[in-house]
Amino acid sequence: MAAKIGFVGLGIMGSGMAANVLAKGFDLTVWNRTSSKIQELVEKGARGAHSSAEVAAASSIVLICVTDENAVHEVLFGPQGVVEGARPETLIIDMSTIAPQASSDHAEKIAACGLSMLDAPVSGSKEGADQGTLSIMVGGEKSDFERALFVLEAMGSTIVHVGESCGDGQTVKLVNQLLASGNTLVMCEALLFAQAGGVDLEKTLEAVSGGAAGSWMLTHRGPQVIRRDWQPGFTIDLQLRSISAVLKAAVDNSVPVPLMNQLYEHYKTLQAQGHGQKGHHALIKALENIAGFKVGPVGLPED
Amino acid sequence: MAAKIGFVGLGIMGSGMAANVLAKGFDLTVWNRTSSKIQELVEKGARGAHSSAEVAAASSIVLICVTDENAVHEVLFGPQGVVEGARPETLIIDMSTIAPQASSDHAEKIAACGLSMLDAPVSGSKEGADQGTLSIMVGGEKSDFERALFVLEAMGSTIVHVGESCGDGQTVKLVNQLLASGNTLVMCEALLFAQAGGVDLEKTLEAVSGGAAGSWMLTHRGPQVIRRDWQPGFTIDLQLRSISAVLKAAVDNSVPVPLMNQLYEHYKTLQAQGHGQKGHHALIKALENIAGFKVGPVGLPED
Repeated sequence: MAAKIGFVGLGIMGSGMAANVLAKGFDLTVWNRTSSKIQELVEKGARGAHSSAEVAAASSIVLICVTDENAVHEVLFGPQGVVEGARPETLIIDMSTIAPQASSDHAEKIAACGLSMLDAPVSGSKEGADQGTLSIMVGGEKSDFERALFVLEAMGSTIVHVGESCGDGQTVKLVNQLLASGNTLVMCEALLFAQAGGVDLEKTLEAVSGGAAGSWMLTHRGPQVIRRDWQPGFTIDLQLRSISAVLKAAVDNSVPVPLMNQLYEHYKTLQAQGHGQKGHHALIKALENIAGFKVGPVGLPED
Repeated sequence: MAAKIGFVGLGIMGSGMAANVLAKGFDLTVWNRTSSKIQELVEKGARGAHSSAEVAAASSIVLICVTDENAVHEVLFGPQGVVEGARPETLIIDMSTIAPQASSDHAEKIAACGLSMLDAPVSGSKEGADQGTLSIMVGGEKSDFERALFVLEAMGSTIVHVGESCGDGQTVKLVNQLLASGNTLVMCEALLFAQAGGVDLEKTLEAVSGGAAGSWMLTHRGPQVIRRDWQPGFTIDLQLRSISAVLKAAVDNSVPVPLMNQLYEHYKTLQAQGHGQKGHHALIKALENIAGFKVGPVGLPED
């Protein structure tokens, strides 16, 4: 008998993830606040439910992927929520990106209801969700992780059990955001330095990207900065949310994060200047304003 | 007839580079201040010279790879220097890492002597020099670059003409150092944040290294930091020299480099504390001193 899986939250990420669970042949029940999204999955073979509780009642594993911690709380504990439909053997996996502390709080309430929970935030963007190549960072008890692995493998290509507590996945997701945004800051400082030195920026990237200076960000966003192409892979608005979460967790855990403080200031300023929907590599604009000159060829349109 | 190549400076980098020129079947004449190094190359088939001037007289292309700008100046313009032996068609290629301004100054003097020069600093460490897989960043006139390419290809796998002025190669080398050291700073902040969050650090690296957070430094030095293994690929003493060169060039070109200023402070402090010969990823120690706790498993020996 195929495993019975539930999925709540069929947004930009969730719809692709749910479709991949379905494609592996699992018996899938879905719910989403906007019902048109349910219909799309039903057309692919899923069963549509009328509430999170109904999803939970039909499933041995319930996956959740919603916008923020309030939405997770509502899905779990609100009227017709997961807790109302779940049985003691139901495993709940929250794949949303929320604060580690919120995830830990949810897990505590879930445990008080006699249920089990993992946090399993993802990275890899919509492409990764659609293609089943996400990185999934899982926190919680090892036995629960082992029970969940077969379904996580339908959605991700890198699945790592990063810690024994629910919330640990969220912490590693924040480490991911810290590294990605920090490497962007380094890249922008380097491109300004190169511009000031009068060298060919495209040739510079070609010369340094393959060695000890290399990063995913330099390879993927460096060429965009040089072309002044602000098409977002991840927007400034979203990056500001990530960095705020890093800063909050850093305060909770008493750890200094000076680079993230700098980035917060830069992004807050850029957001106030109306750049929130641009790609986060438009960070260069904040540094250019300080430096008093721009990178890239002269004569590109103002932006 | 095989091209006649000269090589001055058979140190850690130069000896491997010269051996690769020889291995390609070029006619090679070498000189080094310490003559035992000359003997090693002679045993491999090179001709030993008694001075830089003699190397230049025997060669159509003279490669130089020495320690610093004073050494380059001495090799070029000192007694029995390259300029004394060179003819108008001789092409001089300085592969040392020195300040962009110094390289530019040398080129101006060389041009006044009726000679041509490229700067072509390398990255990729001793392994790259030995294996002929260096990245070579070349500044100078395009026609000179084209004349030089065949011999550069004996030493490197990524060879890029980054600008039309001698010194442009040095600028890109500094961009390389800025990126590599900046990514190290980001990595250290991230590892402290992860440690404070209580997650498994090895699992964290496994989860985030392959995606948008990834960098060469995270993949190669992250595991070393976690094991508190300070074996140097590149020492703090050398990194401090690189960063000082970046800061000097940044002042020359009026560009702010706040991350490099922070790194300078950290490395200067670590050097004063006696850590100069450790790998530059021991940067984590400076951040740990501020945070008041360490990364990695409890119980490792003090270091």
